Amino acid sequence: MSNPHAIGIDLGGTNVRCAVVDAKGQILHRVEQPTEADRGPNRVIAAIADQVAETIAAAGLNRTDVVGIGLGAPGPLSQRHGLIYNSVHLPGWNNVQIRAELARRTGLDTLLENDANAAAFGEYWAGAGAGGEGDLVMFTLGTGVGGGVIVAGRPLHGHYENAGELGHLVVEVNGHPCECGQRGCLEQYASATNLVRRAREAMQAGRESALKSTGSTLAELTCERIVEAVRDGDPLATEVWDEACRYLAVACVLIQHAFNPARVVFGGGMSQAGPLLIDRIVGHFNDMRWHLMDDFPRITLSALGTDAGVVGAAALVLRQAPGELAISNC
Amino acid sequence: MSNPHAIGIDLGGTNVRCAVVDAKGQILHRVEQPTEADRGPNRVIAAIADQVAETIAAAGLNRTDVVGIGLGAPGPLSQRHGLIYNSVHLPGWNNVQIRAELARRTGLDTLLENDANAAAFGEYWAGAGAGGEGDLVMFTLGTGVGGGVIVAGRPLHGHYENAGELGHLVVEVNGHPCECGQRGCLEQYASATNLVRRAREAMQAGRESALKSTGSTLAELTCERIVEAVRDGDPLATEVWDEACRYLAVACVLIQHAFNPARVVFGGGMSQAGPLLIDRIVGHFNDMRWHLMDDFPRITLSALGTDAGVVGAAALVLRQAPGELAISNC
Repeated sequence: MSNPHAIGIDLGGTNVRCAVVDAKGQILHRVEQPTEADRGPNRVIAAIADQVAETIAAAGLNRTDVVGIGLGAPGPLSQRHGLIYNSVHLPGWNNVQIRAELARRTGLDTLLENDANAAAFGEYWAGAGAGGEGDLVMFTLGTGVGGGVIVAGRPLHGHYENAGELGHLVVEVNGHPCECGQRGCLEQYASATNLVRRAREAMQAGRESALKSTGSTLAELTCERIVEAVRDGDPLATEVWDEACRYLAVACVLIQHAFNPARVVFGGGMSQAGPLLIDRIVGHFNDMRWHLMDDFPRITLSALGTDAGVVGAAALVLRQAPGELAISNC
Repeated sequence: MSNPHAIGIDLGGTNVRCAVVDAKGQILHRVEQPTEADRGPNRVIAAIADQVAETIAAAGLNRTDVVGIGLGAPGPLSQRHGLIYNSVHLPGWNNVQIRAELARRTGLDTLLENDANAAAFGEYWAGAGAGGEGDLVMFTLGTGVGGGVIVAGRPLHGHYENAGELGHLVVEVNGHPCECGQRGCLEQYASATNLVRRAREAMQAGRESALKSTGSTLAELTCERIVEAVRDGDPLATEVWDEACRYLAVACVLIQHAFNPARVVFGGGMSQAGPLLIDRIVGHFNDMRWHLMDDFPRITLSALGTDAGVVGAAALVLRQAPGELAISNC
């Protein structure tokens, strides 16, 4: 195949995004549909298989033009065994053999990868990583904080296949309790959810803020609204935002010394704040960094945005040499 | 060669240890001599070459029985370029092409590796890692805190070849200033040097302790003395020791979520405290760990002790297939 294509899928709790991607990382066609995870794995996987067929046809291709499927899904999962153990985003799914089932239904070789690793690989291969310039670590900032790590051109899995759980890096010993059982997790300071929580708590404790007078109740406060208020110079919003950026800078220092990557990339919903996010993270990072070596990662925004996951999942299939795609369609 | 051998060297600021190691990780013979780094790189490298010849002869072997030399050295260095940039442990050494120079003088293929990575590889291959059971991270606790990371059977270097600088993981935001320019580095809480500093500061501030009445002045206080006092139940010594163990447990949580290794190993001088160290680290780790998955590393003491470096350096040469040792003798 002179110009091979692969299917990239980003299976989320709300939507499934499916795209045909070529060897240059270009998306030929994409289709998005609601996940409706509560229908159960069988019906969802059947719907994804239909979506794959639809996407291939809409791109003007045949199934034989496609090398395989890369499927990014929320974990915990086993890349090795093609298995989703369970996920807060897919309620009721337990030990779902999604790789084998999707391969059976589509007749296409399928690879399963953690969604944050897939997005990180997308950025590494065709986004902020500028075509694989060096190791890359990605943070995805949304309702939670996810992480993906690319080392020596491959996603890092670790012994238990749970490497890069960067939302649960401890950034404050004895800090805020996290649902995970730890205290002081990065996610407690730098996710959209917790940004809103911290602003709301401050106002309930009597702090004044323009966030109160937006016509929306405190319960409806969103991260987007906080970002607006930061732009308008609201002190509370600025304080909460700046604290999140500071803890993200701490995380960048941890990543620097653990992985020593060429680049740290920030994606996910919160990254839509653009320079307001990245400039503050870089500012704090520069204030706290060491002076022993100039081994600093470049800290940048995601280049692919919401397409990082599908591009990366497809790229994981495309970067395999023919015959090297070790995942059979059963 | 049915039973290949390699030379492992551990170049430290005080001593150079050199050993002949076989394919099972057994040391046939070892020779240790003072480094005397202030003689300058040329004379030190010449002395190491003599030491290599002496060690081979003492083991009853010929140079042709040896596959090559693995050289562990303090960084920062470039494994790729065989170059020691500089090191606080080798004063006056700047951009020393040690790999090429040692290969030239010995006629043996030579590989350069960061000393902590070499020790970690030794533990991975022939020590606590039980023959390569899975990814392994090692902390070396001495005057500083070093780190080595083995991922997918190889030392992790990272883009700038400075991965695994675990002594500079930030464990306390806005914590104690570190010589490196950061604040709150692990090394500031968990190295032998800083353990002594913290005990001394507490006593100078008026705290009572049996550490005062040992016949030695405060300036002569050692980590070994603190360990003795912990065993004797001295409250201050216990407090300082426990704090160090707690921060090392925080570091284990960071390592769990970053690398998700099978094992975390503690070596270096402080690890001679044995269960007093490891049981407290494990205790604190169990108190602070998450409950989302049972993906916990086994936390253990080094099995090879002061031989980890030479065994690991030799093993890095031995694990290369013949012809794969990409490091020529110039």
